Amino acid sequence: MQLENLPTPCLVLDRGILARNLERMSSRMCEHGVSLRPHLKTAKSADVARMATAGEAGGITVSTIAEAEYFAKHGFRDITIAVGTTPEKLDRLARLFSSDMRLNVLTDDAETAVAIAAHSGRFRALIEIDSGELRGGVSPDRPELIAIGRALGEKLAGVLTHAGHSYECRTVDALKAVAEQERVAVTAAAERLRAVGMKCEIVSVGSTPTMMHVERMDGVTEARPGVYMFGDLFLAAIDSGTRDDIAMTVLASVIGRRPGTNRILLDAGALALSKDRSTASTNQDAGYGLVWDIDGKPSYGECVIEQAYQEHGVATSSQPLPFERLRIGAKVRIAPNHSCITAAAHERYYIVDGTREVLAEWDRVNGW
Amino acid sequence: MQLENLPTPCLVLDRGILARNLERMSSRMCEHGVSLRPHLKTAKSADVARMATAGEAGGITVSTIAEAEYFAKHGFRDITIAVGTTPEKLDRLARLFSSDMRLNVLTDDAETAVAIAAHSGRFRALIEIDSGELRGGVSPDRPELIAIGRALGEKLAGVLTHAGHSYECRTVDALKAVAEQERVAVTAAAERLRAVGMKCEIVSVGSTPTMMHVERMDGVTEARPGVYMFGDLFLAAIDSGTRDDIAMTVLASVIGRRPGTNRILLDAGALALSKDRSTASTNQDAGYGLVWDIDGKPSYGECVIEQAYQEHGVATSSQPLPFERLRIGAKVRIAPNHSCITAAAHERYYIVDGTREVLAEWDRVNGW
Repeated sequence: MQLENLPTPCLVLDRGILARNLERMSSRMCEHGVSLRPHLKTAKSADVARMATAGEAGGITVSTIAEAEYFAKHGFRDITIAVGTTPEKLDRLARLFSSDMRLNVLTDDAETAVAIAAHSGRFRALIEIDSGELRGGVSPDRPELIAIGRALGEKLAGVLTHAGHSYECRTVDALKAVAEQERVAVTAAAERLRAVGMKCEIVSVGSTPTMMHVERMDGVTEARPGVYMFGDLFLAAIDSGTRDDIAMTVLASVIGRRPGTNRILLDAGALALSKDRSTASTNQDAGYGLVWDIDGKPSYGECVIEQAYQEHGVATSSQPLPFERLRIGAKVRIAPNHSCITAAAHERYYIVDGTREVLAEWDRVNGW
Repeated sequence: MQLENLPTPCLVLDRGILARNLERMSSRMCEHGVSLRPHLKTAKSADVARMATAGEAGGITVSTIAEAEYFAKHGFRDITIAVGTTPEKLDRLARLFSSDMRLNVLTDDAETAVAIAAHSGRFRALIEIDSGELRGGVSPDRPELIAIGRALGEKLAGVLTHAGHSYECRTVDALKAVAEQERVAVTAAAERLRAVGMKCEIVSVGSTPTMMHVERMDGVTEARPGVYMFGDLFLAAIDSGTRDDIAMTVLASVIGRRPGTNRILLDAGALALSKDRSTASTNQDAGYGLVWDIDGKPSYGECVIEQAYQEHGVATSSQPLPFERLRIGAKVRIAPNHSCITAAAHERYYIVDGTREVLAEWDRVNGW
């Protein structure tokens, strides 16, 4: 099977680029002496997870219970769900357990901590720490931190933070500063818990931009980056990867041609690409994605998806499009702004390795 | 089963509101003497399609081949795929046929028309007409129209247009003008084809905003609105529905509380809601959605999702949030900006009818 023969739109994943991205992050964490607990919220694939954890001591991170169930079914035995839980979700989580399973949930709420401690399920919990994003998490200097730790009791597994505000940085120096802020917040929280006699085994940080640039990781035990695996245009625009690191693209067909206005219509629109416009906040605005040729090369100049209707993408370029090659049915590959969100509409990856030959199909787990 | 017990995030569909929306559009089209061929790109559900076509002569409209396959499997025998096809897609379409099936594909390209005519598949084709949106379609006054018609030969079924620029209108008068532009373009195209001896059985128009306000439909044979079934905040903001007409919401749980900044964190983020920001271009910007209580009532003031991370939505309100009721695990319902895009991340609907009791689960077809 060749890329030309695939039904469009669909996801194409280049295994060689993926392997290179995995190796780079793995080496960085190894140098820092920190376990890599890769976040599978982007890939949502057991095949990718097996590549990402090869040779690593740690387990994996997920964002939904559906992911936890899928990866458990595929043999993964050490899973952290890095989105705050609720008391109502604990019964379903408890059903996940086999005898050798380790599962960590997340909370920043004292009442939920009480419910976790009282539950018969064998999961443990991490306390979510705010390291400056102001999304979820308790500040490391707040009295609630100790109250939540005491409420969890024997189920306290450690502390976790996500410096999501790293995505707002636009310089490497700013990213390094946020990475240090992330480390300081979570290690301070761990020290406060330990100072009052609690164990704090796991001290977990992670976002791809901070892990790409972090300089110090003392006191940290593990890192949870995710989107580094596939890369995307936004990461490239904030110096946390390059366009050459983008492993996942959307294969699409030309379904309309407007030579008079230098535009083509593609069968990848808002559903196949998502409506993510994250690159709009950078100096490399790529519309709803960047159109490359079927070999993943930028043959059409800076060719961007300027509009995304439900099933139609309208692309135009800084240079005249080669309409003689872009006939109805011709294939292109679209690099995504934000690969986590783009991938979520698709049920599978078609795997290539630098050529047009399709080597395998890998499934994904979507939904909740 | 009650709404309180559902896993979150998930889609809730109110059957009573849906039935009212269907009846309103059906009556309008009946008054105009035009068949309703409802577009299932929003609902993607056989149960909804059966409600939407009850008592109607016409078939249905879809946006993907996966939808066509799904609805054919569920007994629908007259289907138009209203997104331009390619020669490569025809083999898969031909496999859809049973003896009593009618399937119309769409093209605005002479080479593709030749491929359709030459194919052994028993589908017919509609010529896509541009009525001012400048997305897909041939202008009704262009010579290509006749060339495409001649190329299709016996497979020519008619003409179709979609006045997608209706979504850019901000007044009812502007919507009425676009509806008339849509009618004039497609009937002019039909007359030109007939004038040179071609049959043009189907003359198809349709977008929800134009069909809500259309005044004249002479010369038109069918209408294909879709999102009117569920409604959404964007339609309400452009006078093509009201907030009371919104039949589909996202049920979510509170997973974080920040009383100090009057914010709650929900387990519905960019994947469960989509990153659609269409209301931003209206005078009723609702962020990534509007937070209602579990009964679908606006109890929290104008409470909007101001940020949507992958699995987290951050909501705030114009008035103080009732944190005593919004504990971790409390349920809310989120009205979507654009129901087509929000629904696409979900595999099923949980059906209610004005109460919290869950009456049924209806499936959806996603992907391509």
